[in-house]
Amino acid sequence: MALALGDPSGGLRARRRRPTEPSGDPERDIARIAADARALLAEAGVAPGELAGIGLSAPGPIDPATRRIQGPPNLPGWLDVPAPDLLAEALGRPVHLENDANAAALAEWRFGAGRGARDLAYVTLSSGVGGGLVLGGRLHRGAGWNAGEIGHVPVEWEGARCACGLRGCLEAYVGGLAWTRRLRGLATAAGRVAQLAGGPERVLPEHVVAAAREGDAFALQELDRWNGYVARGLVSLAGTVAPEVIVLGTIATAAGEELCLEPVRLAVRAHLWPGLAREVRIVAAALGDRLPDYAGLCVALEGLEAASSLRT
Amino acid sequence: MALALGDPSGGLRARRRRPTEPSGDPERDIARIAADARALLAEAGVAPGELAGIGLSAPGPIDPATRRIQGPPNLPGWLDVPAPDLLAEALGRPVHLENDANAAALAEWRFGAGRGARDLAYVTLSSGVGGGLVLGGRLHRGAGWNAGEIGHVPVEWEGARCACGLRGCLEAYVGGLAWTRRLRGLATAAGRVAQLAGGPERVLPEHVVAAAREGDAFALQELDRWNGYVARGLVSLAGTVAPEVIVLGTIATAAGEELCLEPVRLAVRAHLWPGLAREVRIVAAALGDRLPDYAGLCVALEGLEAASSLRT
Repeated sequence: MALALGDPSGGLRARRRRPTEPSGDPERDIARIAADARALLAEAGVAPGELAGIGLSAPGPIDPATRRIQGPPNLPGWLDVPAPDLLAEALGRPVHLENDANAAALAEWRFGAGRGARDLAYVTLSSGVGGGLVLGGRLHRGAGWNAGEIGHVPVEWEGARCACGLRGCLEAYVGGLAWTRRLRGLATAAGRVAQLAGGPERVLPEHVVAAAREGDAFALQELDRWNGYVARGLVSLAGTVAPEVIVLGTIATAAGEELCLEPVRLAVRAHLWPGLAREVRIVAAALGDRLPDYAGLCVALEGLEAASSLRT
Repeated sequence: MALALGDPSGGLRARRRRPTEPSGDPERDIARIAADARALLAEAGVAPGELAGIGLSAPGPIDPATRRIQGPPNLPGWLDVPAPDLLAEALGRPVHLENDANAAALAEWRFGAGRGARDLAYVTLSSGVGGGLVLGGRLHRGAGWNAGEIGHVPVEWEGARCACGLRGCLEAYVGGLAWTRRLRGLATAAGRVAQLAGGPERVLPEHVVAAAREGDAFALQELDRWNGYVARGLVSLAGTVAPEVIVLGTIATAAGEELCLEPVRLAVRAHLWPGLAREVRIVAAALGDRLPDYAGLCVALEGLEAASSLRT
């Protein structure tokens, strides 16, 4: 749980972090968030009434019509929760809500690796795979707020079963959960990856990245396969949306230029129409662990701008 | 070559058609277009000076920076041609240029099957495969004006060689040229498709559609394969862009609901994340042979609106 106090130019005046620790009761969780926010404001010497607005970046699914949070896997008990309304009531200021992938896309576009781009796609490669699109300087949410959510775009027709029930989804090949399951099945106790993890049953993607840095053959082969599937997802994304820049987050950022971004760029170029391939840049996310702070800030700014353009 | 005189509400006051017949000399071609336009205006009793603007919908590639037409296959000699400037000079009014797929997307969104949609994707399934996106009520052109051009999105990884040099592109499976080549190789003189065409070497996609209407097994099987690949392309499109509505033109419109749209919808639904599949409508284009008239009109309207929003 990240809280931050910022201004439109991206200045962060105060930050606060704590483990999310959901209680099972969303109203209690929101009361705790409000208390944390008040404490942060008090520290910074700012009264709640001085805030122009509040941005809430939350995991989806979110119902676009009601702006209620609809049971994200990591927030037990959060079923149909009007979180922005509850938080606005507690803090006395308007609260804008966005799903975390869209908020991250806004953050990398305003303050990160995509600054100045007209059209940006953000792809998070974490336990799951998600994304968001900022096109022509506006968040493109799409039907059901699903635009840019490329985790369930097929990368292998009739391929591996995904947690969503479909087959061959990008997430079933490169999502951290799916990849971890595969790695634990393949890693042998004698291998370098398992050694770094302290046993095959404890292997995580980060151990593959670490072993690949040392030149371990199994790790390099796994990363090569992972990069290839990431590239397939990006080919579909670039071939339809044609963004100027694609920003890759999380695992891709951790693996870095040599082990991930350069091989992914080569694989994308090999499968993308050359006239388009020249135009699309693929870069690592730039905000690192400040991403949640900027994400919330950008949701607030987006909400304030949308409200002001409705008024004019 | 279609010329039309219209108004912002979609009224078409006069229309004119003639074969394109490019002379090999673009300046001469444009002088002829200008003469045709003057004749059309004279017929309608309108002076060129009364026009608010002129829209030119042309085949790509178009250089987005210079707005020059860069050698479309069906306009020999049109290499690096500043067509809007030449036409504006000849007619004394501002000329706006858009590639034909984007112009068609605008036309179906303003006056056709996508009226009222916030986000629309148009896909033309003709000799080639192209498309355009209207998102949040604005044309989304993307990098190099390539957005929505799904002809080269892969539908079979490392599949059939496409005319573009890549492998497995949608166009290599469902484009009219590629499909015709395949059909002529497969059709036997005794079959119903070849019979309707007057010989295997004269078979066209329309003969498959006609034979499928009669229940011919080979035609139905070919159409089934074609629908399946179209659906794969649409899954990538919907999974990334999440449009409210996808409008299918040309071959899909000719084949109709039972032979194309309904099977395509079922195949898309089977491969698209259910939460998204519910939100995306797939429909046939509605403008038929009036499409080029509305396309030009919409390019003019788009250009005028862009100019007026720059002024305010």
